Amino acid sequence: MNGAESLVRTLLAGGVEVSFTNPGTSEMHFVAALDKVEGMRSVLCLFEGVATGAADGYGRMAGKPASTLLHLGPGLGNGIANLHNAKRALTPLVNIVGEHATYHRAYDAPLTSDIEGLARPVSGWVRTATDARSVAADGAAAIAAARTPPGQVATLVLPADTAWNEGNGVAPLPPVPAARPVADAAIDAAARILKRGEATMILLGGSALREEGLALAGRIASKTGARLMAPTSNARIARGAGRVAIERVPYPVDHALAALKDVQHLILVGARTPTAFFGYPGKPSLMTPPGCHVQTLATPEQDLIAALAALADAVQAPRNASNVPPVERPQVPRGGAVTPEALAAMLGALLPEGAIVCDESVTTGRGFFPMTRAAPPHDWLQITGGAIGLGMPLATGAAVACPERKVVNLEADGSGMYTLQALWTQARERLDVLTLVWSNRTYAILRHELAQVGAGNPGRKALDMLSLGNPELDWVKLAGGMGVEGRRAATMDELVRAFRTGLEAKGPFLIEVVL
Amino acid sequence: MNGAESLVRTLLAGGVEVSFTNPGTSEMHFVAALDKVEGMRSVLCLFEGVATGAADGYGRMAGKPASTLLHLGPGLGNGIANLHNAKRALTPLVNIVGEHATYHRAYDAPLTSDIEGLARPVSGWVRTATDARSVAADGAAAIAAARTPPGQVATLVLPADTAWNEGNGVAPLPPVPAARPVADAAIDAAARILKRGEATMILLGGSALREEGLALAGRIASKTGARLMAPTSNARIARGAGRVAIERVPYPVDHALAALKDVQHLILVGARTPTAFFGYPGKPSLMTPPGCHVQTLATPEQDLIAALAALADAVQAPRNASNVPPVERPQVPRGGAVTPEALAAMLGALLPEGAIVCDESVTTGRGFFPMTRAAPPHDWLQITGGAIGLGMPLATGAAVACPERKVVNLEADGSGMYTLQALWTQARERLDVLTLVWSNRTYAILRHELAQVGAGNPGRKALDMLSLGNPELDWVKLAGGMGVEGRRAATMDELVRAFRTGLEAKGPFLIEVVL
Repeated sequence: MNGAESLVRTLLAGGVEVSFTNPGTSEMHFVAALDKVEGMRSVLCLFEGVATGAADGYGRMAGKPASTLLHLGPGLGNGIANLHNAKRALTPLVNIVGEHATYHRAYDAPLTSDIEGLARPVSGWVRTATDARSVAADGAAAIAAARTPPGQVATLVLPADTAWNEGNGVAPLPPVPAARPVADAAIDAAARILKRGEATMILLGGSALREEGLALAGRIASKTGARLMAPTSNARIARGAGRVAIERVPYPVDHALAALKDVQHLILVGARTPTAFFGYPGKPSLMTPPGCHVQTLATPEQDLIAALAALADAVQAPRNASNVPPVERPQVPRGGAVTPEALAAMLGALLPEGAIVCDESVTTGRGFFPMTRAAPPHDWLQITGGAIGLGMPLATGAAVACPERKVVNLEADGSGMYTLQALWTQARERLDVLTLVWSNRTYAILRHELAQVGAGNPGRKALDMLSLGNPELDWVKLAGGMGVEGRRAATMDELVRAFRTGLEAKGPFLIEVVL
Repeated sequence: MNGAESLVRTLLAGGVEVSFTNPGTSEMHFVAALDKVEGMRSVLCLFEGVATGAADGYGRMAGKPASTLLHLGPGLGNGIANLHNAKRALTPLVNIVGEHATYHRAYDAPLTSDIEGLARPVSGWVRTATDARSVAADGAAAIAAARTPPGQVATLVLPADTAWNEGNGVAPLPPVPAARPVADAAIDAAARILKRGEATMILLGGSALREEGLALAGRIASKTGARLMAPTSNARIARGAGRVAIERVPYPVDHALAALKDVQHLILVGARTPTAFFGYPGKPSLMTPPGCHVQTLATPEQDLIAALAALADAVQAPRNASNVPPVERPQVPRGGAVTPEALAAMLGALLPEGAIVCDESVTTGRGFFPMTRAAPPHDWLQITGGAIGLGMPLATGAAVACPERKVVNLEADGSGMYTLQALWTQARERLDVLTLVWSNRTYAILRHELAQVGAGNPGRKALDMLSLGNPELDWVKLAGGMGVEGRRAATMDELVRAFRTGLEAKGPFLIEVVL
């Protein structure tokens, strides 16, 4: 068994069952091993940013890592933006990057580069294999690193000769540490704050935003009157009927400051003190008001659920939260122009049970939460690191992880163009992804930001740089070019019809929503 | 004048007249300054790999740097693959990467990352601006670094507050060093070798492959019988009728070894000893035969033209080279299937004078050189760093640099999919680019490489991973979705007709060539 096969068998034994690949020459033995080993699913991506974003979506939904397979430094480079998002999402991910044979690196062939240097800024763990006999153990260490709570990107660099030389069989998985417990003192401190009855906000992040954590937080809030909130961008939030509803810290600085202005105590549960996404002249970086007391109940690598359960006990929270929304879905909107409000109502009215919403709406989607809170239970996945071009890959990976659930990808046109190659993989794998592209033919967020940063009145050249018109993108053609059926909708009636068609389709479908 | 405006005016004063941009919030003041300053052309790209590849194409043709404008670490990440190619091409390029305001970085907002860490592997020079009053001087230093022979990528990281705070006016350009002269001893040593009459090859790289260097090398070869060759991948070769023809070291290791097997002396002129592109089990990394004596006449940062001129004098070369091909173009092929041979003949027959060929043909184009050597004078640009996804961006930048010349982009389908967003910029800027996509629906090179590395007989899963069929890409739709007219050609008659149409069009045109 060569090194590549020992590595693939080790990955499989460690629960890594899917590899999102874009291989090259130096990865050919790994490709042959993927071929040989039953049970490993290889999903070909035509661009590395699709592979890394899909591995992120898979990891968020499966709760365990997929692997990537990338081609040397430039292949890794193409995957960096979505690895950055995965890092910020705390997604478990085994990032495998091929490399020249160890002895070949000295010759500085054209594709040679500093792979570890490129990997480090987006990885929590980096290792370069040195020998075929230890590459399986390196792979096992990568899995353990990726799965170490709260989850991280583990990059394994794989020189070609560590794949083709004789290996040493399957390596055992090292012990994966459990989430660290929270000290009693932290629970007592949070409970004392909550009992004071002052304006307190509990900011929930990471796994605290799944059903169990939200239920616990909802009980605490019911008892103490604390407000619950989530950060602006989150890896995954459990939402919908029967679940505790939670709002997010708004993206615009002025709105965020307003949302937090009366908070006297902020309790962090796997989240960090909210900051502005960017610095703006004359505006603060921290969103908490002066004098706000920040108390950490649990950091992301700690056991958030146990901490919330202990806190619920400490404040003698009731058995059930009282802030679960009733099931009152909005009406399906009829007629008229497509507006963000009508879109939100349509989603609230028609989102199916178990839907996975991959939201890269950017400006268009800021108001989608209130109208969808009473839809049937669903998960909402966001772009966590601000690196646009995640939505379509994320939806791809989520659909691979959960083939029985409908994935709805809400996509801004500007962001969608970064990694549109994901549509091809959706067609090839017949993934059940319904994509809605908000076609406003502009980097709408930047028009707003240009004003926010006080850069003055934009002239023609500046507006040109924020406009995606001239020529207008035709998403139906783009999707068709990659084998995905598409439709254009310019009115709410057309959109609702197309949305119903897309929901009924079992496979990828794209709607260009003209705004 | 704020820092951004002082920087843009400094760029313009330093000869940087084009910026290939994909900006975000942190770059809004720079965008406003681009808007305000007359004479700076901003070219919007919908993906950063397009911006960096276009800046490479511009730099190769204009002989001076363009700038990019990228959005923090993830935006830089998306541009890394083509920066790697630009680095290997020795292209002068000012790579500007926006960053959080200096005071905001401490808050580790979602888009925060180690930008310098990401930039270093693909840059010859990296600096982060620290103050609006010195940012113009930083920009001037970046231009000087980019232009320092033989040319390099200079990355300037631009925190938002160094753009929006008050600046210090236009900064003067520091002196740019000239190419270093070659010592007489190196010229004497090369001349002595050539005079021995033993089997000698002169390997020409970089600027030695322009018309003047080739003419000098041709004269030396006429006198001494030395063979001339170029590396496998080159930034730009002057070719066509009236010019000294030169072959490249073949890509396949066995062919390269065969091409060099009788070489007793290898004289390097701005090139390096040929190596295999990848390591292969049981095959050497170096392509020179055992015992081959390698003599460096000039390294890339030296004055290659002066060195060749001195060497021509030293060997008493004749005034004119005798190895200039006569103008005998092939016939336009008629009828029949599209084959690489027929493609080569068509290019040789129809390539217009002054054409700029951006060649990312990968497997399909390996035999294009012999049939095109007698076409009218043209330039041939290749993918230098092996990072596929360069062709369409490279063509975009070359067309911006040389609006009066026809750009012909020879593009493999697999490679084209990496950065297809370039077509949109071609449509928007009405660039005169004729793209031929070799639609073989496979990573053909990898099928060959799978055998070359001895990875065994591929099974279904492995072949699937190298196949772009299922679904088949429709390049006419993809181009149409971005505003570029396209046509499909499945026979040579159809192709010749479409090629003539594309040559006559003044603007972007794409032909999907079914192989």
